[in-house]
Amino acid sequence: MVDSSEFRNAMAMLGSAVTIVTTDGPAGRFGFTASAVCSVTDSPPTLLVCVNRASANHEHFKTNGVLCVNVLTGDHQATSGAFANRQLSMQERFSSVNCQTLVTGSPAIEEALVNLDCRVSKIDEVGTHSIFYCEILELKHSAATEGLVYFNRNYYRLNDQMRLAPDQ
Amino acid sequence: MVDSSEFRNAMAMLGSAVTIVTTDGPAGRFGFTASAVCSVTDSPPTLLVCVNRASANHEHFKTNGVLCVNVLTGDHQATSGAFANRQLSMQERFSSVNCQTLVTGSPAIEEALVNLDCRVSKIDEVGTHSIFYCEILELKHSAATEGLVYFNRNYYRLNDQMRLAPDQ
Repeated sequence: MVDSSEFRNAMAMLGSAVTIVTTDGPAGRFGFTASAVCSVTDSPPTLLVCVNRASANHEHFKTNGVLCVNVLTGDHQATSGAFANRQLSMQERFSSVNCQTLVTGSPAIEEALVNLDCRVSKIDEVGTHSIFYCEILELKHSAATEGLVYFNRNYYRLNDQMRLAPDQ
Repeated sequence: MVDSSEFRNAMAMLGSAVTIVTTDGPAGRFGFTASAVCSVTDSPPTLLVCVNRASANHEHFKTNGVLCVNVLTGDHQATSGAFANRQLSMQERFSSVNCQTLVTGSPAIEEALVNLDCRVSKIDEVGTHSIFYCEILELKHSAATEGLVYFNRNYYRLNDQMRLAPDQ
């Protein structure tokens, strides 16, 4: 059997982009840091987000039925920390970023690499988590090009100098 | 509406670990490069893999009902290319790596950062793709520590020199 601690140590080696997932609507405005975000299919354009059902966010996102995935840049380590910090109110979290809205009305962080504005099309449950399947209704790129990834419990900035040549 | 090309350009900005997903069983031995792999829950320890239903691999993985996710290291750009190359036979792909087997019998690549050996517990369909929910039955770490990520259509090696300090 693989226990919880072994699972977490292994998953730490699966590097991933860092995103802020936001929503606004009848339940209010919320946002949290997420790395369990994954591309699913281009027809219809769909991604998925895994959310712990024990988190306060879960019901708010389900009620609003819309969300925006904001993919963070290399400058956003502190933003990631703020939206992962349960001691901070939503107002405090959002005070560190500039937001606009796209078609769903969820906060689209202007400094993000890309905003993926979505309607939740299906929610599936597996163990402790819900998988939100989200159809992308609108997207917006910023001028930023540096990515941010979380790997082995550290942040890494992805810029051109770190890119591997094709034969490396 | 977000078209297929816009979707792909946006998803390219969502950096991700590079993995080789393998299987062996009644349908035979197969492996392909995948970046749409995501942690789901630690109870039971579960990850997911998105697979295009139009790919030849889809039915083989479904028939075998087991798979191993091999998370690649910074030295594995060529391995990623080999397992993504439809011109190469499975024998040719596997000739570039050393494999052992864990509990499911799927090829566990010895040079990988970590092998996540799984039983497929559920398959869900969304648009053109299937989502394989996989319970991790056994896992194994190697001595390697450098990760490999794919971002903005390039590979990046994650090593200690690129790690951000906590206040950056």
